[in-house]
Amino acid sequence: MKPLVIMSDFGQADGAVSAMYGVAYSVSESLKISDLTHEIPQYNVWEASYRLIQTVGYWPRGTVFVSVVDPGVGSTRRSIAVETAAGQYIITPDNGTLTHVKRLSGVVAAREIDEAINRLPGSGESYTFHGRDIYAYTGARLAAGVIDFSGVGPEVPPGSVVELPLPEPEFDGKRITGDIDVLDVRFGSLWTNITRELFLQLGVKHGDRI
Amino acid sequence: MKPLVIMSDFGQADGAVSAMYGVAYSVSESLKISDLTHEIPQYNVWEASYRLIQTVGYWPRGTVFVSVVDPGVGSTRRSIAVETAAGQYIITPDNGTLTHVKRLSGVVAAREIDEAINRLPGSGESYTFHGRDIYAYTGARLAAGVIDFSGVGPEVPPGSVVELPLPEPEFDGKRITGDIDVLDVRFGSLWTNITRELFLQLGVKHGDRI
Amino acid sequence: MKPLVIMSDFGQADGAVSAMYGVAYSVSESLKISDLTHEIPQYNVWEASYRLIQTVGYWPRGTVFVSVVDPGVGSTRRSIAVETAAGQYIITPDNGTLTHVKRLSGVVAAREIDEAINRLPGSGESYTFHGRDIYAYTGARLAAGVIDFSGVGPEVPPGSVVELPLPEPEFDGKRITGDIDVLDVRFGSLWTNITRELFLQLGVKHGDRI
Repeated sequence: MKPLVIMSDFGQADGAVSAMYGVAYSVSESLKISDLTHEIPQYNVWEASYRLIQTVGYWPRGTVFVSVVDPGVGSTRRSIAVETAAGQYIITPDNGTLTHVKRLSGVVAAREIDEAINRLPGSGESYTFHGRDIYAYTGARLAAGVIDFSGVGPEVPPGSVVELPLPEPEFDGKRITGDIDVLDVRFGSLWTNITRELFLQLGVKHGDRI
Repeated sequence: MKPLVIMSDFGQADGAVSAMYGVAYSVSESLKISDLTHEIPQYNVWEASYRLIQTVGYWPRGTVFVSVVDPGVGSTRRSIAVETAAGQYIITPDNGTLTHVKRLSGVVAAREIDEAINRLPGSGESYTFHGRDIYAYTGARLAAGVIDFSGVGPEVPPGSVVELPLPEPEFDGKRITGDIDVLDVRFGSLWTNITRELFLQLGVKHGDRI
Repeated sequence: MKPLVIMSDFGQADGAVSAMYGVAYSVSESLKISDLTHEIPQYNVWEASYRLIQTVGYWPRGTVFVSVVDPGVGSTRRSIAVETAAGQYIITPDNGTLTHVKRLSGVVAAREIDEAINRLPGSGESYTFHGRDIYAYTGARLAAGVIDFSGVGPEVPPGSVVELPLPEPEFDGKRITGDIDVLDVRFGSLWTNITRELFLQLGVKHGDRI
């Protein structure tokens, strides 16, 4: 029995998240389920990817993450599960949600979900709630040990996992150009992709304006 | 030990929900507790009823739901527990919160909570937090097996469970009239009570404006 | 294994809370973790203190609370754990978060966290996330029984625990003067520090305006 951690862009005002919990507990009432966040801005795959890299590394080996930020639900995007270099599992639509984890932590194996096996029985008619019927269900089966990683479905090359562009910051000797990756609105901070090491090369002193 | 699922209109900014968890864990530290949602708009019994029907069916038999949307706290409304046709339990003030479950899933048995037994010891002086002192406490006892369903209190007729008006959509051969049951503000959708079958009778084609 | 309850001003939109859960589950996957709230207004130590007194008493003896409202992170404020008169534990920066519990419930013992022992291995370079690296980690160890209370660190006098000013309401025979402690925005109530007993001395009748 391994922890199951769920992330989505559903918010928590309606019953969607609880329906996912219910499906997971129907697989095994002994599961430990918790939330990464459900406040990912709607369809914002970039932020989903960012929140995974911010969090995954603090969880035990074998933890199963289910991420459902899925602008392409009903389209042909794949549903996959990956194993990270640190031995955690992430189940998600293959739409860029794994960008940061793939680049920065490493993905050592990937499998496409076989929906003939890993789909909530009786849910075939629903085209809009794969988070509940496929992702939460498969994640619960993996976390509860009903299936092992090979039971998710056929292997696919880790290199085929979809990535969003992840620009590098640039330093031309006088000026650093980078992106603001994420806004920390609550505490009024901006998080950039400029590393501490690169920033120090600018020679900025405490109290300087930039 | 069965899952305990809590819903309310309390929000999660203060300690009210955690006090309910604490009372439940004081009954048994082995319980599995989770939230349906605590963002039901204040006193909106209709939406509470809607969120239950959206969720309950995905949970295992024996799951105990506690719903606390209670504009009549302190009045004479009954406190009840019902058993659904699918074998789940819902504990709630009897104020219409069970409308959709009663009509669409079916309620097979109902009991009025006997507060002489099922009330947090020492809480008699509080008239305003029945969610904690009666509902969470009774739900925890039922989920933990301290009492069985008959231990909730005296039986009442399932037909006596309070219902809100649940209008049917109408089709006059040219026009369908229905209600918008719930706003899905987050994803910009409106959910109506017009069924797919009825809508198809209109003969609307993909791309038509209505 | 005792319940672990976490409170912060982090919100739940990013991965911070889940990282704390992950650290705690890395100590023991058998823990029961839940949230008091993460919606404490940023840096509002007063409200953190108020939410603790509103909640702690409803939890079982031995429950471990971790509170992370920490405007002084990176400064010299102490990190402490206290034992309440009712046998619960609270781990927090020593910045006034314990004001109400100390005054109204009582603190019977206090210890300063020994970071040489009670700090997430490998986290020494982070100066900004003590909630995860020290508080959640220590709280999990205490709740899981890896350490007992004496294993937190050296004892400090309970009287030394920092308190915010907690003014008393005043009655001059004609007029009561008090503070509004907390706004219950959701239900439109104001909570004051004027006790029921004091208010009754005014002789106000139901329906009077004040």
